Amino acid sequence: MHTDHKLNMTMLCDFYELTMGSGYLQTGFQDRITYFDVFFREVPDQGGFAICAGLEQLIDYLQNLHFSEEDIAYLRGRNLFPEEFLDYLRNFQFTGDVWAIPEGTPVFPQEPLLTVRAPAIQAQLIETFTLLTLNHQSLIATKANRICRAAQGRTVLEFGSRRAQGSDGAIAGARAAYIGGCAGTACTISDELYGVPAGGTMAHAWVQMFDSQLEAFKAYCRLYPNHATLLVDTYNTLKSGVPDAIQAFNEVLKPLGIRKCGIRLDSGDIAYLSQKARKMLDEAGWTECQISASNSLDEYIIRDLIMQRAKVDMFGVGERMITASSQPVFGGVYKLVAIENQDGEIVPKIKVSENVGKITNPHFKKPWRIFDNATGKAEADYITLWDEAVDEGKPLELFDPQATWKRKTYTNFTAKPLQVPVFQGGKLVYQSPSLKEIQAYCRDQVDALWAEVKRFENPHNYYVDLSQKLWDVKQALLQAQTDV
Amino acid sequence: MHTDHKLNMTMLCDFYELTMGSGYLQTGFQDRITYFDVFFREVPDQGGFAICAGLEQLIDYLQNLHFSEEDIAYLRGRNLFPEEFLDYLRNFQFTGDVWAIPEGTPVFPQEPLLTVRAPAIQAQLIETFTLLTLNHQSLIATKANRICRAAQGRTVLEFGSRRAQGSDGAIAGARAAYIGGCAGTACTISDELYGVPAGGTMAHAWVQMFDSQLEAFKAYCRLYPNHATLLVDTYNTLKSGVPDAIQAFNEVLKPLGIRKCGIRLDSGDIAYLSQKARKMLDEAGWTECQISASNSLDEYIIRDLIMQRAKVDMFGVGERMITASSQPVFGGVYKLVAIENQDGEIVPKIKVSENVGKITNPHFKKPWRIFDNATGKAEADYITLWDEAVDEGKPLELFDPQATWKRKTYTNFTAKPLQVPVFQGGKLVYQSPSLKEIQAYCRDQVDALWAEVKRFENPHNYYVDLSQKLWDVKQALLQAQTDV
Repeated sequence: MHTDHKLNMTMLCDFYELTMGSGYLQTGFQDRITYFDVFFREVPDQGGFAICAGLEQLIDYLQNLHFSEEDIAYLRGRNLFPEEFLDYLRNFQFTGDVWAIPEGTPVFPQEPLLTVRAPAIQAQLIETFTLLTLNHQSLIATKANRICRAAQGRTVLEFGSRRAQGSDGAIAGARAAYIGGCAGTACTISDELYGVPAGGTMAHAWVQMFDSQLEAFKAYCRLYPNHATLLVDTYNTLKSGVPDAIQAFNEVLKPLGIRKCGIRLDSGDIAYLSQKARKMLDEAGWTECQISASNSLDEYIIRDLIMQRAKVDMFGVGERMITASSQPVFGGVYKLVAIENQDGEIVPKIKVSENVGKITNPHFKKPWRIFDNATGKAEADYITLWDEAVDEGKPLELFDPQATWKRKTYTNFTAKPLQVPVFQGGKLVYQSPSLKEIQAYCRDQVDALWAEVKRFENPHNYYVDLSQKLWDVKQALLQAQTDV
Repeated sequence: MHTDHKLNMTMLCDFYELTMGSGYLQTGFQDRITYFDVFFREVPDQGGFAICAGLEQLIDYLQNLHFSEEDIAYLRGRNLFPEEFLDYLRNFQFTGDVWAIPEGTPVFPQEPLLTVRAPAIQAQLIETFTLLTLNHQSLIATKANRICRAAQGRTVLEFGSRRAQGSDGAIAGARAAYIGGCAGTACTISDELYGVPAGGTMAHAWVQMFDSQLEAFKAYCRLYPNHATLLVDTYNTLKSGVPDAIQAFNEVLKPLGIRKCGIRLDSGDIAYLSQKARKMLDEAGWTECQISASNSLDEYIIRDLIMQRAKVDMFGVGERMITASSQPVFGGVYKLVAIENQDGEIVPKIKVSENVGKITNPHFKKPWRIFDNATGKAEADYITLWDEAVDEGKPLELFDPQATWKRKTYTNFTAKPLQVPVFQGGKLVYQSPSLKEIQAYCRDQVDALWAEVKRFENPHNYYVDLSQKLWDVKQALLQAQTDV
């Protein structure tokens, strides 16, 4: 019954969030206001930027956060938690604030994609699901965006459900792929739930079911005259597949006056086969027949196919997109950056580490994107303390936080705050755009990046700089830790 | 509300399964009995074998298969399906037969992990979910088994939820990791739903929340004296982390007479730090304190750490296991292998392909494992037609299906059928073992493989041979296709 079980995602937490939560309650920290940032350290595939996604699912999760009696019974059975804590969980809900960078935005390492301000137990408990949804969907949106850019305007479809890592991998994965630029998916439920356009025509089994390939093709054309994309590689693509397809089009579609149709290549050398098939189709008068290809594709293979003048109009991408197989992890982390003391003063916190790359940017912060007014292009991101303003009327000098002598001054610029308020005092104050709007927004924002940031090999390192005030706070904390 | 939406997994199908399904109905193929096999072509990570898993979730799915009115309304809105088909879906349920290799069994390329015998529309519709659950859980069970074998008896825990590809990636992934040999998980809901033992202690935030690390450690020891594993790398592992842990153990645990405790290393050079920490703990009398490590681990790093005499008792493995990041796809496919004609005769079907590796083994088949009675070891797998018997009293000559002159004769052997009946006429006839039993069965079955099959580099190629009858059927079909 598990697949039909109404899953309560509240329990999708790491167990330590519960042991710590109970610990906070018993040591009087439960109402202590804490600030956590979500950020990542490295763009997958050595890319120049990532696309953030997954916020809508986080909103659903936070709105539905609650422990059922069943959950509490399970926890009691673990013999680790006092009744006081179990009582506390019975009325548990999210009462905090959340700011987030909207879905579809290009994002860069070290900047806060999301900031949570909430009582310690709440902020701690939502760690796992928050990371899970943002990591998963940002991973797939980023990969899909790379693949769609490689296709240079040709249609890319998401075909990977069967190879996805679990049902949500398929369902939310197709949503993220659409945000990244895919035109649609094969995954029916992603259309029903999220409105990702779903489509598809036939598998090899359809062809094998009939006495002959030609009969299978003709039957399909009769049933779906306006959506006839025929899979031509069941037996032999050029010897029988394409000829049978042409005959089926001639016998069934031509008399109906239909010119639009398609074939799909699912094996073999796509560059070679697509050129030969294109020639055969054109010579038979089927110049509007589209050729789809779908065999272990990714951004590099698509780029090569296009360079080799493959005649492919539409790419169906499976496992390499839905699992982002070249680097299947988006390494977002969730780190404490500040605590409010009893007077409401915000005290910045830092995590030092044996690994220098794991040192955090402390304090309650605000990320900005600096656009050049002349070109409209994004020039750099800039992180300030939460209460700092950026005066667009004055020159803004940014410096590399690792190499502070590297400085650049911006004059004619617009500073756009990257985060928007999502929850205030537990109340949702943000209306998610439609999925179509998110996709369009993503496309526009990627267009605002310089080409140098977008190339696959050695992309230009886009700067994410800290304000002087924030840099000073960080240095002071590092110094204090070193002195310990 | 999507995370709380009671997901109907029936709609987690590729859209082409619906267009083909409607096509089968309209062309009179809907009651045609079809046979489909699930098999895979390549073991991930160039390993010698995989571990199959995910059957229990497939059983749940098949038992709950149905279209809701909401689903049917969505499909009607697509303007592709006649009312006849929508009516048909209204009473849709699974009435077929399923045979499967039990979860936890080591499996090899080309053999049928699962065989479906069902009316065409049903068999076609379940393709995506069947592959999804078997591919996902087999992937993770296989990876977890590699990692656990590398740990040579030391405890391995699954810590990856936050980096999983979606919620089901975390939840079902932890289940599969347990089957593969992990002792437990950090994922609370996997314990509640499936009984995967969940545990965990503290994050860096716990340490940062208190005025000092020592205070944080002492508070935790007081709260969980019998489960005190302290995270020692928030500031500096050897300078303050381990000394503070020892002081907390001395002040809180020692007076209680508690000897068992732990520290966790989450960054830095684990080999070096664990040796130093072990020495400090031993010198302070905390010889029973266990050391856990958890920083980007996988089977290769664990093997190296053990070779370098790292003093680690327990490995917490995150992203590299829960996403099987080195090769995050298990390439199981679902292929038509036979059709029954009107007289009930089983007609074998084959899919030829431009890629030779994609040619299928036709017909309704039965896989066996040949065990040597003297050693108890698995020698080879053997695939026969469904109605062939293997006579253990006679010598059995197997031959390589690609190089038929390579032959080997077995005498003192046991031939164990690998598949068990799961559904008969839509009725469940199989009782899944408990998860603990599956884990134990997996361990035993992996023990029955020769060491040569289990090594990571260039494992011995375990044979999956075809019976003479099956080989003859395949050759005849290939010949017939070539003659077309």
